[in-house]
Amino acid sequence: MSTQVQTLKGFRDFLPEQMIVRQKVINTLKEVFESYGFQPIETPSVEYASTLLKKYGEEADKLVYTFQDKGKRDVGLIYDLTVPTAKVLALYQNNISLPFKRYQIQRVWRADNTQKGRYREITMCDFDIFGVSSPMADAEIIAVINTALLRLGLSNFTIKINSRKILFTILEKLGINDEEQKFSVLQSIDKLDKKTREEVEQELLEKNISKEKIGELFQMLDAAKPDDDPDLLKVFQTSEQLGVKQRTTDQVGYTFVPYLVRGLNYYTGTIYETVVDEPKIGSVTGGGRYDHLVSMLGGPDIPAVGSTLGLDRIIDVVQELNLLGGTSTITKVLVTVFEGYEKQSIATAQELRKNDINTELYLKNDNLDKQLKYANKLNIPYVVVIGSDEAAINKVKLKDMRTGEQQALSLSELIKKLT
Amino acid sequence: MSTQVQTLKGFRDFLPEQMIVRQKVINTLKEVFESYGFQPIETPSVEYASTLLKKYGEEADKLVYTFQDKGKRDVGLIYDLTVPTAKVLALYQNNISLPFKRYQIQRVWRADNTQKGRYREITMCDFDIFGVSSPMADAEIIAVINTALLRLGLSNFTIKINSRKILFTILEKLGINDEEQKFSVLQSIDKLDKKTREEVEQELLEKNISKEKIGELFQMLDAAKPDDDPDLLKVFQTSEQLGVKQRTTDQVGYTFVPYLVRGLNYYTGTIYETVVDEPKIGSVTGGGRYDHLVSMLGGPDIPAVGSTLGLDRIIDVVQELNLLGGTSTITKVLVTVFEGYEKQSIATAQELRKNDINTELYLKNDNLDKQLKYANKLNIPYVVVIGSDEAAINKVKLKDMRTGEQQALSLSELIKKLT
Repeated sequence: MSTQVQTLKGFRDFLPEQMIVRQKVINTLKEVFESYGFQPIETPSVEYASTLLKKYGEEADKLVYTFQDKGKRDVGLIYDLTVPTAKVLALYQNNISLPFKRYQIQRVWRADNTQKGRYREITMCDFDIFGVSSPMADAEIIAVINTALLRLGLSNFTIKINSRKILFTILEKLGINDEEQKFSVLQSIDKLDKKTREEVEQELLEKNISKEKIGELFQMLDAAKPDDDPDLLKVFQTSEQLGVKQRTTDQVGYTFVPYLVRGLNYYTGTIYETVVDEPKIGSVTGGGRYDHLVSMLGGPDIPAVGSTLGLDRIIDVVQELNLLGGTSTITKVLVTVFEGYEKQSIATAQELRKNDINTELYLKNDNLDKQLKYANKLNIPYVVVIGSDEAAINKVKLKDMRTGEQQALSLSELIKKLT
Repeated sequence: MSTQVQTLKGFRDFLPEQMIVRQKVINTLKEVFESYGFQPIETPSVEYASTLLKKYGEEADKLVYTFQDKGKRDVGLIYDLTVPTAKVLALYQNNISLPFKRYQIQRVWRADNTQKGRYREITMCDFDIFGVSSPMADAEIIAVINTALLRLGLSNFTIKINSRKILFTILEKLGINDEEQKFSVLQSIDKLDKKTREEVEQELLEKNISKEKIGELFQMLDAAKPDDDPDLLKVFQTSEQLGVKQRTTDQVGYTFVPYLVRGLNYYTGTIYETVVDEPKIGSVTGGGRYDHLVSMLGGPDIPAVGSTLGLDRIIDVVQELNLLGGTSTITKVLVTVFEGYEKQSIATAQELRKNDINTELYLKNDNLDKQLKYANKLNIPYVVVIGSDEAAINKVKLKDMRTGEQQALSLSELIKKLT
């Protein structure tokens, strides 16, 4: 390994084997988004720092890669896809018809310290519906998540759903009306997922919530029902009409989780996140309704609901559970090349390509053994050998690299066999 | 338009209509690359500045977006895809089998001043073969260019080909052996494309080349033949075996252009660029053989040949010549939603999706007129209307938005009609 060059910590090089999985997952997600009428957009990777820092307040400067460009403008690398989309909604109001259903799959950058499994460069995958306040939109987002994960072959996920309205009503009933205190209490409730009730109780006591109130809080959370928010009830009903089932031991789907909070302060209604039972890697999607954020970020005052898919985590799951069946090459066949038979090899490769068979021609002057080893190392499943024996009888030899089997075939037989 | 937010100069927002063309072009290119056995890789957008600045010498600091990250490391945004790939070849020598045929489609950034039609953020598309010195590799690159442009529907391109070896031999015969002077003279020859011979002669005189030598130079360039470099001859022969034709007035293809130089100093053999006759937008591809660059950039000492496709220019051509037939939406049908009939509309949309028909469900509570207008504005070709009339006879109404025609159909008839 050269000491001259290295990849920055928190950044990744993707070699073909990884890229093939990434592309398959991304293509599947695109297909699902497009089947529901979502359309792609892309925005710059660099924006004015003032645009980027709006959303995250004082901490922003630690999180966002900011710098001065050669023209002394304060700019930065995008941190998420919500801010750029709010910008697009502001700038192109006349070109964009509402409802605006867009998906966006792009790299974003995180300047904060890398931890185990956290990257500074990630590919984000957002899909949102702008301009619709109906709970049908919320349900559609949930249906897209459900469809996408099923299409990827996941058989062990739960889409946890709650409504901020239910949480706010409970807090207000308890007399917790101060904004700051509200979110502080919500932060503690959010931890019920990982901590014991006793630990969360201790934390709330330290936040000056009385033991009685904490008791009432837990009671009200336990007693909460989807009906407490009529919109949430509609979300559940429509989700079911869209094919999302209730999670049980026998089937994947959604479930009502009244203590689900989600970290960000800007959610106004439905909130959801998806977890997989195995492997244990946290949530693979998160999102909800955020009706005031777009205008806060400089865009028009329109309702919005959507979700982020954690592409890296989903890819990890797909790889760990081997859901794509271990495809590690896109190339189907290697055609050998030997001196004196180049023309036959080239013609054969061209015929295979014309028939939509991905074909690599071996371009170096090596012996058969080396050419076969190369195919093996790249996991190319078939090798076509063309040498003097084969040319003499106007056939090619097809070798199946997994079984070792070989047979002499005419060109048309070869094409038939490989398509 | 908000004055609060704006997109940086030289950067672009891509709305769905543009994205659809971009994605189609990119998918076509990927298909062609993969049909020839090229495999995808991706590398970080941010690298150590020391890695990035190696290639471009003193001018580099003006061209490359460099900055300090939060850990005070000198880093920068990638300027091309050759430097990151050289890094990959250095770092993963044990995982990568040679020949290594990779394609890479990623954003890169240019910090220099924006001019008309030049962007600071562009999507680059490179494909290269590493580890092969045979001219068959050069020919394969040319065949991929030819196949890709034909597949995109271009019918007016010329792949200009030359060899640096022919140029160097001519210069050496003229006694121009000094490296610096060689490249200075080559720079002037390169201008024969745009300037008159007299203008280039004047420039060469100013570079202290005698009038006699200039006369000889032009004579030798005019008399140059592919045979002057046996490798180039083999490139042409193999290209033809791979289906690349010679350019004539009747057919697109390659042509030998002895005064083709290409700007970059690191080419060692074959060089090529592709121009289209209409629209006039300069070259759409460029590349050649660069056998020493990888090691210069810290990678192993291996031969290399490849090409860059100018994605933005190719997309401009595809759009200007309307080669994709003006597709402006991915959504095939909008299903209306009216109060009381949501369930039927949802069920119909789900059935269409199950049959791979991209379907948008109208999520707002609007009248028919508004729903039709929305479909029209998004160029969605079909609308399915489900209201009281339709529900009463258990049918749906399909409206063809281009002809205005409408017909009542059962669900199975609808699916048959739209697939």
